Amino acid sequence: MDGNLIIKNAFVVTPVGNTALKGEEMGNLKHIENALVVVKDGRILYCGPSGEAPDIDNTSFKEIDAAGRVVLPGFVDSHTHLIFGGYRPDEFEWRLKGDSYMSIMERGGGIQSTVNHTKETSAEDLASKAQWFIDRMSEMGVTTVEAKSGYGLDTSTEMKMLDVIKSLADNPNQKLRIVSTFLGAHAVPKEYKGRTDEYIDLMIKEMLPAAKGKAEFCDIFTEKNVFEIEDSRRFMKAAKEAGFKLKFHADEIVTLGGAELAAELGAVSADHLLHVSDKGIADMAKSGTVATLLPLTAFALREPYAPARKFIDSGCAVALATDLNPGSCFSGSIPLTIALACIYMNMSIEETITALTLNGAAALDLASETGSLEEGKSADILILEFNNYRMLPYYIGMNCVNTVISKGRVVNKN
Amino acid sequence: MDGNLIIKNAFVVTPVGNTALKGEEMGNLKHIENALVVVKDGRILYCGPSGEAPDIDNTSFKEIDAAGRVVLPGFVDSHTHLIFGGYRPDEFEWRLKGDSYMSIMERGGGIQSTVNHTKETSAEDLASKAQWFIDRMSEMGVTTVEAKSGYGLDTSTEMKMLDVIKSLADNPNQKLRIVSTFLGAHAVPKEYKGRTDEYIDLMIKEMLPAAKGKAEFCDIFTEKNVFEIEDSRRFMKAAKEAGFKLKFHADEIVTLGGAELAAELGAVSADHLLHVSDKGIADMAKSGTVATLLPLTAFALREPYAPARKFIDSGCAVALATDLNPGSCFSGSIPLTIALACIYMNMSIEETITALTLNGAAALDLASETGSLEEGKSADILILEFNNYRMLPYYIGMNCVNTVISKGRVVNKN
Repeated sequence: MDGNLIIKNAFVVTPVGNTALKGEEMGNLKHIENALVVVKDGRILYCGPSGEAPDIDNTSFKEIDAAGRVVLPGFVDSHTHLIFGGYRPDEFEWRLKGDSYMSIMERGGGIQSTVNHTKETSAEDLASKAQWFIDRMSEMGVTTVEAKSGYGLDTSTEMKMLDVIKSLADNPNQKLRIVSTFLGAHAVPKEYKGRTDEYIDLMIKEMLPAAKGKAEFCDIFTEKNVFEIEDSRRFMKAAKEAGFKLKFHADEIVTLGGAELAAELGAVSADHLLHVSDKGIADMAKSGTVATLLPLTAFALREPYAPARKFIDSGCAVALATDLNPGSCFSGSIPLTIALACIYMNMSIEETITALTLNGAAALDLASETGSLEEGKSADILILEFNNYRMLPYYIGMNCVNTVISKGRVVNKN
Repeated sequence: MDGNLIIKNAFVVTPVGNTALKGEEMGNLKHIENALVVVKDGRILYCGPSGEAPDIDNTSFKEIDAAGRVVLPGFVDSHTHLIFGGYRPDEFEWRLKGDSYMSIMERGGGIQSTVNHTKETSAEDLASKAQWFIDRMSEMGVTTVEAKSGYGLDTSTEMKMLDVIKSLADNPNQKLRIVSTFLGAHAVPKEYKGRTDEYIDLMIKEMLPAAKGKAEFCDIFTEKNVFEIEDSRRFMKAAKEAGFKLKFHADEIVTLGGAELAAELGAVSADHLLHVSDKGIADMAKSGTVATLLPLTAFALREPYAPARKFIDSGCAVALATDLNPGSCFSGSIPLTIALACIYMNMSIEETITALTLNGAAALDLASETGSLEEGKSADILILEFNNYRMLPYYIGMNCVNTVISKGRVVNKN
């Protein structure tokens, strides 16, 4: 009976389809009032008007009365750095006081600080810390999360991180689906300073083969003075040839052409994009690369938000994610992501819901598995506290989720 | 034994004193590592180094091991509009689309919409709705909240609201302390359009006497085209003479002189203050009127934040509160308030903690009762998830509170 559910009196609100919704399609949500959702063996068997539901043997189904409240697909957080050692609250404070990136680095801050802590932390401790974050995410309605490596920057620590992700993903009691991304190209490690080519060689020869089977995606921080465009092209072509799907950290700090490169290589997503060029947007629209925007990071850094409106109006598919990480953005707040999208990025609530569900799933190549409430998909379902989905941005920064169902199992209930 | 507690292995972080901390004093927090907090009959009997604790009979005390985590005074949310009928999510959306205040009013939005719903809603329904918000607040560590009337604008509905507040406050199982404010002067009701003087007469003759004993504070929306300075002076002088303590909604939309008037009349606090004049700040510093800043409202309205730094640097006492209300700011998020204060208002985390504890208490004339962890005060105590209070702004928009103790009773535990 676990995984068998009937949700009655639901006000279903969902995007529709097995691919990302692009441009103005993002605003198209299907509404079904007085709906019934039937879940069998963790999959949606029926989602539609209660009068047209198939006959089933009710006795083997757990029944939930949504009492007219909104029923949404589970949220997908498609960009996080969930695994890390240590915390960096002091650095956060230094930055607010106006200290420069360089002076923070000199005081032992920056990514190297997390790399050092991650090397020193056992796999077990990394996993239990990450599980704590996962539990918080699940409370806010996340049913699929992506997790990256990238705080090892050597083969053994990178693999330790991917193994931690795998152990979390494989836990049969896990509250959400976890997708793994290899991000050895997060930074050039200090041991390779000035020898970026050699680090890329190491990643290609040693890390990519080792990561195969552990991670589904390969990601890179394409940025001036980190991995420039030519470095990025060489490495990501090799990753693609090795069978990885591609993601990019692109055009976050300066306009470098990361979006164009992501489109050129057929990346599934390019992320951040605060300083994307018009050509980058046009290229992504053409290639179908999902634009994953991370407003919490811009909020934390007092940066301007990514041009969500321009992406949507240019026919791109936009996803939203949290970017949870111990440096630039230590937050996994889905409610605040929604508030920033609607109040500060000029996205409608319908577009925001699509960006956090079906388009988030598409950013993980999972749009046929989750991200909408349709027959055959995984039963990743939220019941809100309210009967109006417009409460999501209106109840600012507050959690509107009452019940979280992951693969047909109730994992959180208020 | 209820109300008798020992918290061991605490890292106590608290402001000190029975009055608001002003100016640079706001950054002075006392730190006690390896501390013991002893609570008897709901009051703090001892808070200090564990080695110097008095002998007590442990058997009649419930013991909590803080395991080195931060122990703070409970948060005080000193400005909310907690009681209201209906919701206004559609209006929120219209505003984001750029619709004008007037066009929203014409479509049935604005305060009049909430007034209509509040009149139609029973006291019982108003109370159970408010209790839902109180439960959310308590989870975030609020142990004292202020609640205003002001959605009645006629004597019977205003009194209904104050009676609801009283019923919530008097509930022996209530999770937090509730302070009541009469805000009949929230707006000029439509029946009195163009006859502000007559409405003020009504409030003075009928409402103030009726509110006496139900509300401790009297508040007014001093604003251009609402209650101008002379209207405000007349009404608030009458309220003061009737024995009410004073609060002002001051200088929120334009620079009108509300801060100066609040100082002149010895108000306990003036709130909002986005457009306060330099003279207003100087007058408040002199009178000791607490400046209660409401960053969530500015965030929701995309307005500039109040000049917190200028207040502090001018020697004022600053408090922070949420302004929870169904119109301009439907949020009770303490974590987001902290993030906005530290990231966008240039307040240090120490100043922010003082603003949400002792100075919040002072804004309710309760600084000798709560707001710090000191012998004799009410045992309103938080245990955080972390052993570093700098996690509060760093874990952006997320709840860092593990355990909430209100008057010596554990009311929330994660």
